[in-house]
Amino acid sequence: MSNWAIAATWPFGRLAVEVGMKLLDEGGDGIDAIEQGVNLVEADPAVDSVGVGGIPNLVGEVELDAAFMRGADLAVGAVASVKGFPNPISIARLVLERTPHHVLVGEGAERFADSHGLQRAPLLTASSLEAWTKRRREQGQLTEERISRGHDTIGVVALDRKGAITAGTSTSGLALKLPGRVGDSPLVGSGFYADDTVGAAVATGCGELIMRGCLSFAIVELMRMGATPQQASAEALLRLIGRLENTVAVRDGAVDETKIAVVAIDRHGNVGAAANHDDFDFAYSLSSDGVIHLARAPKVG
Amino acid sequence: MSNWAIAATWPFGRLAVEVGMKLLDEGGDGIDAIEQGVNLVEADPAVDSVGVGGIPNLVGEVELDAAFMRGADLAVGAVASVKGFPNPISIARLVLERTPHHVLVGEGAERFADSHGLQRAPLLTASSLEAWTKRRREQGQLTEERISRGHDTIGVVALDRKGAITAGTSTSGLALKLPGRVGDSPLVGSGFYADDTVGAAVATGCGELIMRGCLSFAIVELMRMGATPQQASAEALLRLIGRLENTVAVRDGAVDETKIAVVAIDRHGNVGAAANHDDFDFAYSLSSDGVIHLARAPKVG
Repeated sequence: MSNWAIAATWPFGRLAVEVGMKLLDEGGDGIDAIEQGVNLVEADPAVDSVGVGGIPNLVGEVELDAAFMRGADLAVGAVASVKGFPNPISIARLVLERTPHHVLVGEGAERFADSHGLQRAPLLTASSLEAWTKRRREQGQLTEERISRGHDTIGVVALDRKGAITAGTSTSGLALKLPGRVGDSPLVGSGFYADDTVGAAVATGCGELIMRGCLSFAIVELMRMGATPQQASAEALLRLIGRLENTVAVRDGAVDETKIAVVAIDRHGNVGAAANHDDFDFAYSLSSDGVIHLARAPKVG
Repeated sequence: MSNWAIAATWPFGRLAVEVGMKLLDEGGDGIDAIEQGVNLVEADPAVDSVGVGGIPNLVGEVELDAAFMRGADLAVGAVASVKGFPNPISIARLVLERTPHHVLVGEGAERFADSHGLQRAPLLTASSLEAWTKRRREQGQLTEERISRGHDTIGVVALDRKGAITAGTSTSGLALKLPGRVGDSPLVGSGFYADDTVGAAVATGCGELIMRGCLSFAIVELMRMGATPQQASAEALLRLIGRLENTVAVRDGAVDETKIAVVAIDRHGNVGAAANHDDFDFAYSLSSDGVIHLARAPKVG
């Protein structure tokens, strides 16, 4: 039997890895492994940046983004700015598998989810409301020009025993974002990318900075040229940081939050990660030992 | 005085080039040149794939997407699935210049446009309604699984005399698309990319295929490695076509429309283009002769 591997962002990614690894070990599909794993994280109200219990936008609504990419044919399913559905990654999968489109946003995405019978559920919890109220108060005089705080996306990459490589993401985005704001997570090439012939990558952190460098695509391209997932993650992140270092936007403080982290996998089942800060932990599991590892990504830049 | 250059997709791109070249020749900013040029195309009801007179989605609404990218700091302003505003590229510019965010979609984007006093206007014209009715009838039994038709995005790339490189796009997307469907045009790296240190690219055609290869970013990366805009356009397109050729999605006919075309510019003011079909014309103007050229892009693949 061939190798399998799965890796996910943040310590809460452990939930996704735990479920996903069992499916992968039994020979299941990567897309099922990721969907079931991410669904758990989405349902966990303790994770305040994904699904139920996600921190609301500026006007108190929880808006969710999610995506899938299938490495066989590079097809994408993504949704953005979706309200009222606790499992946006499952809507993203339906977009990928049941429509000729790749991206649906807002009301259209909600209508589509309704038409496929997905269940609605309240996303606001007592604690997410409390966190929102507290932050809203701290922020004091809010201006459109200056609202920013990091968010922790669940991003998962998986190689299954058939050699299929899949990437998936799900997030509630920036806390106190403007309504309709979309970060990197549902944007192909920025928040995620997967190609069976090479590997896959996912990103988390400041979406506005990640998307400037199409970071996940850049990592996969470096792996295509021979880099390991670890080398590609570090090198692509370093290039982006270097390119942005002297630009106006970062220098003038328009972006408060500049944290970026990435996780990558290649078609042989090697895993890598990198961050521009020293507190990014990620979870992974490999067929070679079948246990869950929690590791700290090396800081670059 | 330094060189300037501007290039735009499709023969209707001539409208944008004509306005833009004057501003660039006077030493104006690329972002002004593109906004004013694209605004004209958006306002032209004869262009049935952009702005006013754009062909409606499946349920008869005109939904618009647009984006800007500033090559100095790689910052983006993009909007998607916006209804009721005739000039989405002007909303995209406000997102870029007045918010800490890069992408706003749907109602949130409309609320933002309202807050900045942008004028609403009806987008449906007698002829776009007629085209919609005709296509809706032709389509017969519509299914979610099979709705697809090419769209002609206005995409513009410009180099101004200060060396600033900018990319801009605007489209009404696929005719008869599902509500909320978003193509490549507002997706950074797919529909557009711009980097002052290298060049810029924009894409038009089947967004679902374009985004699978982050085509605009791929072109800019090839230019970074030394390719001319012409070489990079042809090579990136060829690679994407080659990669997709044997994949399920294209083979099984899930995608009816597979036309793709790209236009690119480098920091020296060289222009290039390519298409996977033989009817893609584009417009451009260079400081060296200051006239408008209309050229047929070479077919690749």
